[in-house]
Amino acid sequence: MVSEPLFRHDVSDCLAANIGAHGLSDDAYERALVEAEPFLETLRGSRDLALLGLPGRSDDLPGLETLAARYRDGFDDVVVLGIGGSSLGGRTLCALAPQGRSPRLHFMDNIDPGHVEALLGGLELARSGFLAISKSGGTAETLAQTLICIGALRAALGDAAVGDRMTAIVAPGPSPLRRLAERHRIAILDHDADIGGRFSVLSATGLLPALIAGLDGRGFGAGAAVVLDEALAAPTAADCAPAVGAAVSVGLLREHRLATTVLMPYDEALAGFALWFRQLWAESLGKGGGGTTPAAAMGVTDQHSQLQLYLDGPRDKMFTLITRPRDGVGPAIPEGLSGDPELAYLEGRALGDLMAAEQRATADSLARGGRPLRRIELPRLDEPALGGLLMHFMLETIIAAGLMGVDPFGQPAVEQGKRLARDYLADGAP
Amino acid sequence: MVSEPLFRHDVSDCLAANIGAHGLSDDAYERALVEAEPFLETLRGSRDLALLGLPGRSDDLPGLETLAARYRDGFDDVVVLGIGGSSLGGRTLCALAPQGRSPRLHFMDNIDPGHVEALLGGLELARSGFLAISKSGGTAETLAQTLICIGALRAALGDAAVGDRMTAIVAPGPSPLRRLAERHRIAILDHDADIGGRFSVLSATGLLPALIAGLDGRGFGAGAAVVLDEALAAPTAADCAPAVGAAVSVGLLREHRLATTVLMPYDEALAGFALWFRQLWAESLGKGGGGTTPAAAMGVTDQHSQLQLYLDGPRDKMFTLITRPRDGVGPAIPEGLSGDPELAYLEGRALGDLMAAEQRATADSLARGGRPLRRIELPRLDEPALGGLLMHFMLETIIAAGLMGVDPFGQPAVEQGKRLARDYLADGAP
Repeated sequence: MVSEPLFRHDVSDCLAANIGAHGLSDDAYERALVEAEPFLETLRGSRDLALLGLPGRSDDLPGLETLAARYRDGFDDVVVLGIGGSSLGGRTLCALAPQGRSPRLHFMDNIDPGHVEALLGGLELARSGFLAISKSGGTAETLAQTLICIGALRAALGDAAVGDRMTAIVAPGPSPLRRLAERHRIAILDHDADIGGRFSVLSATGLLPALIAGLDGRGFGAGAAVVLDEALAAPTAADCAPAVGAAVSVGLLREHRLATTVLMPYDEALAGFALWFRQLWAESLGKGGGGTTPAAAMGVTDQHSQLQLYLDGPRDKMFTLITRPRDGVGPAIPEGLSGDPELAYLEGRALGDLMAAEQRATADSLARGGRPLRRIELPRLDEPALGGLLMHFMLETIIAAGLMGVDPFGQPAVEQGKRLARDYLADGAP
Repeated sequence: MVSEPLFRHDVSDCLAANIGAHGLSDDAYERALVEAEPFLETLRGSRDLALLGLPGRSDDLPGLETLAARYRDGFDDVVVLGIGGSSLGGRTLCALAPQGRSPRLHFMDNIDPGHVEALLGGLELARSGFLAISKSGGTAETLAQTLICIGALRAALGDAAVGDRMTAIVAPGPSPLRRLAERHRIAILDHDADIGGRFSVLSATGLLPALIAGLDGRGFGAGAAVVLDEALAAPTAADCAPAVGAAVSVGLLREHRLATTVLMPYDEALAGFALWFRQLWAESLGKGGGGTTPAAAMGVTDQHSQLQLYLDGPRDKMFTLITRPRDGVGPAIPEGLSGDPELAYLEGRALGDLMAAEQRATADSLARGGRPLRRIELPRLDEPALGGLLMHFMLETIIAAGLMGVDPFGQPAVEQGKRLARDYLADGAP
């Protein structure tokens, strides 16, 4: 199905052998790899873990495709109601869709009053569809968004219009969102009860928006399956890219007090992916006083914002650059417009040539400066490649959690804040 | 002109006295404040520093307003060509403009081939204007963007159309951008040679896009002047909000190995501001192996992405929450749609009530957990308030640089990468 590798994963410039004393020593790296073995072995025996079963599932795709076709044909705008993992997965996948295609997808992902008002005010409700996504069915923000949109639809088009224009994705069992959907005859898709929001990107949560955007739902799963199969078939952790990534990251944390792990794609279409990773890494590993802080950056833009810090600030970071071949790609930089010999290096080149030179130069500057650098190179960015990247980082995060001794699932620390917010709201004026 | 305070600046929950042992001790805080005095005194004597003169300048506003009116009347879309500080300042200010107003402002801020093609492909060139911004006039990305846009305008509308549709902002003296502008009869505004990109937001770089977006250019300067005057009139560093912010930040770095400083506005209209701060702090302070890493977050969205890490991850962060009163603001969450007692806490409230409760709950959760928290509370978000915030953080950054012993201006470490990129491009296929 997929014949060439989906991407090249190269951590050699994280190692002291290549970049000097600030890199990871062979000893520390070996130790982390040995420690990773049992966690990899656990994954090998966990084919029944719901998350790992996702790439092999296609039984629900025909139903999702039929529903997506209804949204595509019926609506000019589709609004995804939800927050955090219920929003970032869809946004990550939909970034592959060509811009300007109909329907337009909007991810509300906040409750800023002005923002919500502007988004809803710009919609023609008769031509708009909605997806309300909350695993628990009790997320306050998603419920508030959903109530407001139901109210707007009823006011503009009558009660019967609501069920035609909205779908809810929520775990089985009683919950406010499920009851609300039932009351308004809104179709309900079951959110897998065993898959948390930040691991749900390859389920209906991510796939339904992607299908509405016209993308190939099977492609994501196919790419994820390739990465999963390769990882679990690897004879040792050293042959398994996600285990290697986890070992480098945790090794650098132990040996060099790594504080920040920077994910920097040279690709606007991976801006959402970087934010998805930022949630995955932070919520899964930021526990018990441990973890490292993920940062989402963007090449080449952040060369003009963060690179000074990356190259000359504290040595507390590792960098993952995600690139693909760009030579000859994109608009031509026209010749003969300047008559300026100082611009000869640009004129007549493709814009992609400049991007290719800059991504190479930044990677080399980091490595020469002894800043630990992982290179992920994609031959192309399409549904299988993105599905593969998503599976890679979910596996890497789970293995890193094993090495750090934390449970990657759940986010217990935020519960107190949720209770407080509810109390303050009930008290009246906060 | 501005009678009530533009914002309240409260660092009390950064201090050990309030949040316990993980906060900044009185001793370390006092020491940092005493050390800040000479840097504040230097600023008091630096009224001739070009940056500090900006809020008092209004001589160039009438000219900018006339030019902006031409852009507003003539164009449906205006594209800002530039990268880093040449883009973020305008983007930060323009976020105050109501959405959906004409013309639409686009900040290119990258050279991703697909992204640039999609942006240009969506324009009606006859109704589009351009601003090309580069202080040095030699920024490769900006020159590539500008050459491509000049080429597109010539091809679609003829050579004479270029000068009518483009303005360049570039420092005096010979440079590729200035020569290119002269050759194509593009109007040139002088970029102040003494103000670097990340400090240029209150000059034409930020103000011209803001005026095109219909905002009050005088308001930004007026708010900045209030903050500047108050800061420089403060009898001691302890009475000067930017010095207090710098002392807390550097004190926490010394005493508790602060790695990350998180700026988290509860305001989608401040998303650009958070990115502007992220550049300001990183490029100004990330030098000589020192500095702290800035992170831009967004409330309430990142409660569902980063808060687990913030509350339970490593104690290496300080948090700045920027909030404003939200009670009663925004769309009503309708009553009677659910019939569900579990939703009684939401129904009938304004969406802003939920946001108000959540920003209060998150702040309290951080402080209760002994995580250093600064609160910045704006009575309202308008041009003077944003101008004041910008000046506050520029002053705080300059004072922090003094405390850290680095020069806040310049970004010497990125020069090697720029040379490498040019070499790779000249070599042919990188």
